[in-house]
This record gives sequence, structure tokens and C-alpha cells, in this order.
Amino acid sequence: MAYKDQVWAKGLVAKVEAKVRKLLAESPSCHDWDHTQRVWRTACHLAEQEAADMLLVEVAALMHDIGRVAELRDQGRTCHARLGAAMVPELLADMDVSCQAFIDAVAECVRSHRYRRRDGVGPQSLEAKIVYDADKLDSMGAIGIGRSFHFAGRIGARVHNTSEEALNSDSYSVEDSAYREYLVKLRFLHDHILTPSGRALAKRRHQFMVDFFAEINREVRGEDLAK
Amino acid sequence: MAYKDQVWAKGLVAKVEAKVRKLLAESPSCHDWDHTQRVWRTACHLAEQEAADMLLVEVAALMHDIGRVAELRDQGRTCHARLGAAMVPELLADMDVSCQAFIDAVAECVRSHRYRRRDGVGPQSLEAKIVYDADKLDSMGAIGIGRSFHFAGRIGARVHNTSEEALNSDSYSVEDSAYREYLVKLRFLHDHILTPSGRALAKRRHQFMVDFFAEINREVRGEDLAK
Repeated sequence: MAYKDQVWAKGLVAKVEAKVRKLLAESPSCHDWDHTQRVWRTACHLAEQEAADMLLVEVAALMHDIGRVAELRDQGRTCHARLGAAMVPELLADMDVSCQAFIDAVAECVRSHRYRRRDGVGPQSLEAKIVYDADKLDSMGAIGIGRSFHFAGRIGARVHNTSEEALNSDSYSVEDSAYREYLVKLRFLHDHILTPSGRALAKRRHQFMVDFFAEINREVRGEDLAK
Repeated sequence: MAYKDQVWAKGLVAKVEAKVRKLLAESPSCHDWDHTQRVWRTACHLAEQEAADMLLVEVAALMHDIGRVAELRDQGRTCHARLGAAMVPELLADMDVSCQAFIDAVAECVRSHRYRRRDGVGPQSLEAKIVYDADKLDSMGAIGIGRSFHFAGRIGARVHNTSEEALNSDSYSVEDSAYREYLVKLRFLHDHILTPSGRALAKRRHQFMVDFFAEINREVRGEDLAK
């Protein structure tokens, strides 16, 4: 998009950062400002590697979870991606963004960043793919492991359950453990990363998760006692 | 202790198991029945290796956290080890245990199993050392990592904070993260394991934690993006 000289583009990232930081102040820490900052940084890295529109990527990465507080508050009835996309136009208008194409592009990134999609439309633009990848990468590796145990603790689920009974349980149930999240989602993420630079990072983070859950199962089954 | 033929010793482990399972029903999952079961199994393994009094170890391992619910309820004002030891005589009397030496020995194991001791008395008997080691081993390795993030989630602390500012914060604060727990306690545990068989297990679990926190710091600082 040709907007580099537009008045509204100047200082926009800082304005969005300040606004989102405020919006996420109430968000529990799996999807808090720390998470958004990591996604933002990863997205910048991917945007550089993939020669994408940096301003669009930065604004969209910062805004990707602005609907989260509402979804967490009603335990998943709200779709945070859809709500977030709906919040984008007004927020950007308040920051004097006057380019409708830019607003639409940010909204697309926010709407399509979700792994568990409620409609069939995945990320289409390069920038939407980057925001999606950056968000997924933060659910992988050691940080993904930490976030999933943390989430289980927050909702009062079990620490761990080696058996696959976790698989037959529901979100927000006592079996909604980190291992359930791994079985139903995390272990598949590396196959759904959309950019080449994202895939390179995902490979390492995926293997780290595989090794971690193998080890926790070994320990919890008492298999390391036997040696 | 010479009690193998005593009437009270028969079926005691099953009775204690049933009672403790009930007592821990309300306990949040870092210190729940799952944890106690793992400590019990590890303690049995160590007792076998160290040729310890198996009945004493089993009963004490099962009972080690019976004071936990109270401590968690008042955010640490109660000392669960001291409270648990005080609960032992009545519970065992209800199960017709008539040997005072056995009751005292169980109470000692429960009183001295705690890492953050409020008085200066550590585990003295072989059996108390075994219960202590088994409990510490469950705070190490992948399961220790999982439990510490889970605890942070339960109390609403941050997922992670790579800086050592975590060190200068308090228990139950927003900085009481898994990494804080690692910095103030988990990374030192391997040096405090008391039995040779326990030390062998601790070595592997310690290294796993070291590698995990190195990796999460790498990810959270964005160091794996640079490659």
C-alpha cells in the first residue's frame, strides 16, 4: 500500500501500542501484553524476511488479540478474532487513519489469525499469514509449553494426565490440561505455519515440545525410576 | 520397627490411601492427589533402593501433604508440614494404629518434608529423607516445570519474565512465575537431595530444567529469531 507519506501513518505504531497495552491490561497472562509483545517482535522478524508491508504487520500484530478479554470472560462464546476485527475500524479511525484499504487489511489480519476458525476463511494476504504464524509460534516451544500449563492452572484443570482420556474432554474442564492442548492443537501447529521463515522457526519449537511431553510422560509414568 | 505381625499394620496403606484421597479432594492440582500418588510411587522406589522401612515410607508419603489445603487457603500463613504432622496421630489412631513409635516416625516424616523450613530441623531418619527426596523430585524435571507454570496460572502471576526482577518479588505476587520458582528454589534442589538413589534421579531432572529455562529465555528474548 502506498501510504508512506500519509500524515496518519506517522507515529501510528506507538499510538496502537499504547492503546492495546491499555486494552489488554485486564487480560490474563496467557494472552496478555507480554504475549502481544512477543508476537509483535516475531511478526516484525517474519515481515523483514518475507519483505512484507511492515506498518501493516506491526499494527495488525499489536491488535491481533484485542478481542481476547471478552472471549476469556465468557469462556469461549465470543470469537475474539471476529470481535477484534470488528473493533479495528473505530480504533484506527480514532487514530486518524483515513485509508480504508489499510483499515480493511488490518481487520483481515485480525479476523483470520485464529487457529480454531469458526468460519472457513484463513489468512489470505502475506501480512495476515505473518501475523498468524507469529501468533502460532508463541504457542510452540518452551513458551508454548509454559503458556499451556499456565492456562490449565488458571482454569483449575489438572497439571497432567498421561492417558489420552484428556482427548475426550472439553475445553475449560478439569482435563483441559497442557497435554490436552498439545494433543488437540500444539502438536499439529508446525504443519500449519504459512510462511517459509515461520516454518524454519517452527521446526525447532515443535521438536522442543515433542521432547518435553515425552519426558513428562516418562516421569509421570515412573519410567525414569526403572533405570 | 518390629510391627509386621501387628493387627493394625494389615491393610493400613489402603486405609491411608482412601483417607488422604478424600482430604486432598479440595486441593488445587499442584498439590493434589495426582502429586501425592507420584510422591508415593517415587518414595516406594527409593525405599526399595535404600532398604528402608516400606510401611513407614508408604504411610508417610501418602500423608505428607495433608496440611496443604489449609496452607493454600490462607496463602502460606499456615505451615502445611507442621499442621500435617499435628494431624497424623488422630488420623492413625482412627485407623487403629497402636504403636506410638510408628505414629511418631510418620509425624517426623511429614513435619520435616518441607524445603522451605520454618524451623531448623530437617529429615533425620532414613524414611524421612526418602519422603523428602520423593517430594522434591516431583518439583523437578518436566513435571516440576509443568507444576510451577500451573501454580503461576492459578494465582494469576505472569507466564514468564526473563529478567531477574522476578527474584526481588514476593510469593503470590504477579511476578511469582515459574521462573521465579526456578530461581529461588528449583535450581538448587539437586544439591539438597539426601539419598544416593534420589541423587541419581535428581541429576537427570535437574539438567532437564536447566535446558528448559535456557530455551524459554532464548525464545522470549527473541534470540532464536536471529539465526
